[in-house]
Amino acid sequence: MIKPFAAAALAVALSGSPVLAQTIYPIDRAEILAGARFDFKVEFPERVDPATVKVTVNGADHAAAFGQSGTFVEREDGKDLSALILRDVALSKPGPVTVEVSDGTSRRSVAWTVYDTGPRQAKNVILFVGDGMSPAVRVAARILSRGIAEGRSRGKLAIDDMPHMALVATAGTDSIITDSANSASAYATGHKTANNAMGVYADRTASPFDDPRVETIASLAKRKLGLAIGIVTNTEVEDATPAAMVAHTRRRAAYDEIIAQFFAAKPDVLMGGGSANFLPQAAAGSKRKDDIDYVARFRDAGYPVALTKGELEAIASKPDTRRMLGLFATGNMDGALDRKFAGGGGVAKFPEQPDLTGQTQAALNVLSRNESGFFLMVESGMIDKYAHILDMERAVYDTIMLDNAVRLARDWSRARGDDTLILVVADHNHSNSLIGTLNGEAAPDAPLQERVRVYDKAGFPDYAPPNAEGYPSRVEASRRLAILASSQSILGGSVHSGEDVILTATGPGAGRVRGSMDNTDVFRVMAEALGLAAVQ
Amino acid sequence: MIKPFAAAALAVALSGSPVLAQTIYPIDRAEILAGARFDFKVEFPERVDPATVKVTVNGADHAAAFGQSGTFVEREDGKDLSALILRDVALSKPGPVTVEVSDGTSRRSVAWTVYDTGPRQAKNVILFVGDGMSPAVRVAARILSRGIAEGRSRGKLAIDDMPHMALVATAGTDSIITDSANSASAYATGHKTANNAMGVYADRTASPFDDPRVETIASLAKRKLGLAIGIVTNTEVEDATPAAMVAHTRRRAAYDEIIAQFFAAKPDVLMGGGSANFLPQAAAGSKRKDDIDYVARFRDAGYPVALTKGELEAIASKPDTRRMLGLFATGNMDGALDRKFAGGGGVAKFPEQPDLTGQTQAALNVLSRNESGFFLMVESGMIDKYAHILDMERAVYDTIMLDNAVRLARDWSRARGDDTLILVVADHNHSNSLIGTLNGEAAPDAPLQERVRVYDKAGFPDYAPPNAEGYPSRVEASRRLAILASSQSILGGSVHSGEDVILTATGPGAGRVRGSMDNTDVFRVMAEALGLAAVQ
Repeated sequence: MIKPFAAAALAVALSGSPVLAQTIYPIDRAEILAGARFDFKVEFPERVDPATVKVTVNGADHAAAFGQSGTFVEREDGKDLSALILRDVALSKPGPVTVEVSDGTSRRSVAWTVYDTGPRQAKNVILFVGDGMSPAVRVAARILSRGIAEGRSRGKLAIDDMPHMALVATAGTDSIITDSANSASAYATGHKTANNAMGVYADRTASPFDDPRVETIASLAKRKLGLAIGIVTNTEVEDATPAAMVAHTRRRAAYDEIIAQFFAAKPDVLMGGGSANFLPQAAAGSKRKDDIDYVARFRDAGYPVALTKGELEAIASKPDTRRMLGLFATGNMDGALDRKFAGGGGVAKFPEQPDLTGQTQAALNVLSRNESGFFLMVESGMIDKYAHILDMERAVYDTIMLDNAVRLARDWSRARGDDTLILVVADHNHSNSLIGTLNGEAAPDAPLQERVRVYDKAGFPDYAPPNAEGYPSRVEASRRLAILASSQSILGGSVHSGEDVILTATGPGAGRVRGSMDNTDVFRVMAEALGLAAVQ
Repeated sequence: MIKPFAAAALAVALSGSPVLAQTIYPIDRAEILAGARFDFKVEFPERVDPATVKVTVNGADHAAAFGQSGTFVEREDGKDLSALILRDVALSKPGPVTVEVSDGTSRRSVAWTVYDTGPRQAKNVILFVGDGMSPAVRVAARILSRGIAEGRSRGKLAIDDMPHMALVATAGTDSIITDSANSASAYATGHKTANNAMGVYADRTASPFDDPRVETIASLAKRKLGLAIGIVTNTEVEDATPAAMVAHTRRRAAYDEIIAQFFAAKPDVLMGGGSANFLPQAAAGSKRKDDIDYVARFRDAGYPVALTKGELEAIASKPDTRRMLGLFATGNMDGALDRKFAGGGGVAKFPEQPDLTGQTQAALNVLSRNESGFFLMVESGMIDKYAHILDMERAVYDTIMLDNAVRLARDWSRARGDDTLILVVADHNHSNSLIGTLNGEAAPDAPLQERVRVYDKAGFPDYAPPNAEGYPSRVEASRRLAILASSQSILGGSVHSGEDVILTATGPGAGRVRGSMDNTDVFRVMAEALGLAAVQ
């Protein structure tokens, strides 16, 4: 009988007795890319005698299977809780793997699948992420950007107009509801994890930096194939989605340490907002808690640094630029509506911020100079932040901006003979819905329930026609789209929701994008397209 | 420049002057199956002299193109508004069609596309509709019915586990928000229409029965291929979705007239609730406004009538039953939760209602006796009605019921060598989202905002494990799914929302289900699978 219970209950059931069972990382039913590195950890539910501990991998002693015996910690965090940890192991042979752990008192087993890949199909991989890009903002972007007449769209968004589509389940190890950290981590590593965690399984110890790690697509692509790595966002670069491409921590808020991990990983292109945590604490606007100047460190490591759109273009267009750091705001960058039309947000302070299309073009220019190819993640990250505060027009404009960046990348790849796998996905849903229109002309200050129009009364919105970039040239309209959040009345804003998200894809390897998938499968699609298991 | 305006504004722009333009049905950009019948209508914006009227089809006079000159109505509804109407025309030659209308004062043109099909691929077509089946109830059904552990589903729903998937845009001719009538009509006819309308374009006259008609898939399948036709629902059979398979009216509430249209169309299998409008007004429970006994009429026309599950099974299992009418409740039938567990709703009054799986099996038994094949629509229609009143558990249970019916049909088709195109689609979205869990144990009567748990606090629900049919055996749980509607706080319930809906498909012809589609394309997929344009 299938049991809809979480891991703890299941582990008890499997152990055959009411005693607590061990926790094993990677978790039961993990799917592991052959040759990808990971940390193996067993958490015993009490203090155990290492002499009683037996860990086997498909029946063989774990030390033989993993090539190391690991470290036994008798008292983790000073408590009567023992653990066994092996760092940086890998399994190269595809097939089912059963790991069994016993300590004389209790036992536990997990089953993994190690999977192979075929040969490499794509020279490059670009992963576009619309953070919190719900179906509601997506259909709104289509209406505003392409137009609609008599119910029929006048055109397709680039993010929709792709030959392959799937729905992606997003739940994490701890909850049916996912944040941007564990979502991006699932895409980047092929392993699920918990809210706030990235690049690790979230273990029980207090430290947010010792959790069992899993290897990221960026690490694999660089280590195995010599790919250039690009990470582009319009949020702070330390924020969850960009950070998860390289970082390993169970605390997404650990910005200072995440920057240290960025510096260690050395992505070839890194750009977005978030300079505050790159600057030493004495510097104006700094949010660091130490005196390290990471802008200087990146410069010393050979990274030209762009702080404005003009600098970005100048640096990217130099034929010998193969690395760059771009930091265009101390915090998050501003969305399309503020930069292009309204002038709000931080535009007065940072008037020279590039658009996501400009960032994408610059990244393509720089990364494509690497003859081995590249992996690039581009995030339109403010969609989520605007959605949280119910600023739906800004969320929709930044969905249009993502669409423009995707179109640019698709056209770029087509011109090269379509050598690049392009994926477009949201990381989680938001609890918002397009329920009709808001009649603002009649009584702009009237309560929402008097202004909202549903069903046939909703009609069609009357935003200004889209300009050449696909944005309505004025956001003011007498009949606006009514996108409301189910959580706004009880929680004061929109929260993430647990529905599947939309994944569309084009290019070599995109054929695996179909039907109902899990978020870890997004990693697998990229690993397969790059043939990551086909090289040692 | 693309203009996101509705039809009226566009027509003004095209006419080149501020006078009102004519309205032409079918509308601009209509896609018309070669050989499918439709009514052609021109509504003039004023009273015109028929001698000044010129209507051409690809430059040729309309009478030659359509084989009739039509009826000119000088004063429609007694007003100074003229119209030209041609009933039951068809176009047999695929390609672009431009229709131009002038009356001396103003002119208007529309462009249609007439499309062909390849040869027939599928013997049968089954269209499953989850009315109002939102992504939220879908993922909830997966969690309850298949189980989830550490974020990973323990299995797939049958409705998800299909080789082909697409997202389907749902807007109608009058609004971005669609009801079940115009949605089902788009699936059934390949033409968009307005809220409350089915099988017609909604014209300006007062009568809801004179609107320009478009042919339904049921009519085409029967007329061109001799297919048996089945219509199965658990709502009233006169309700929008089942009615739209055969009916032509712009008023979905016209139940008495819809039953007359059912009787005229004579679907081979018709079953669901809604007997109240079949019975003469003198009968107990009748809602008819006349003395006609449609149960008797159907009986006299050779339809055995089942009023209970037992009668349904007995009738369907008789080898010579090739037609049947099933009416299992006066109003809507009861959902799975009431019939199988809670005993609420109308179960006490109608204790012998069949399950949707039983209805589907009976329909397959009867319809498959037609050697030419069949078209069957099966609706799980109460999902929408429960969603409207925020009864999310019942909505989820009826999503599981739909899943069981789909699995049954898929297994049935597989056993026959996979000769049947099976489509599963929602007709419109609902404004609900799965935002976490509700902690009912701690304080079941506390306000929602104190009980709701989001992100990592949401964890996983603890419903009872699913039984053999995939339903949790008890709906009570201390940690339930929190599915909230964005419209509930301002409108008191959930309303339809405008996001794309999910379409999944398997069987011959399912390959056309991919990417981003329009709701009219669902008709086209079925027409193509049956090769409806390949026969005269």
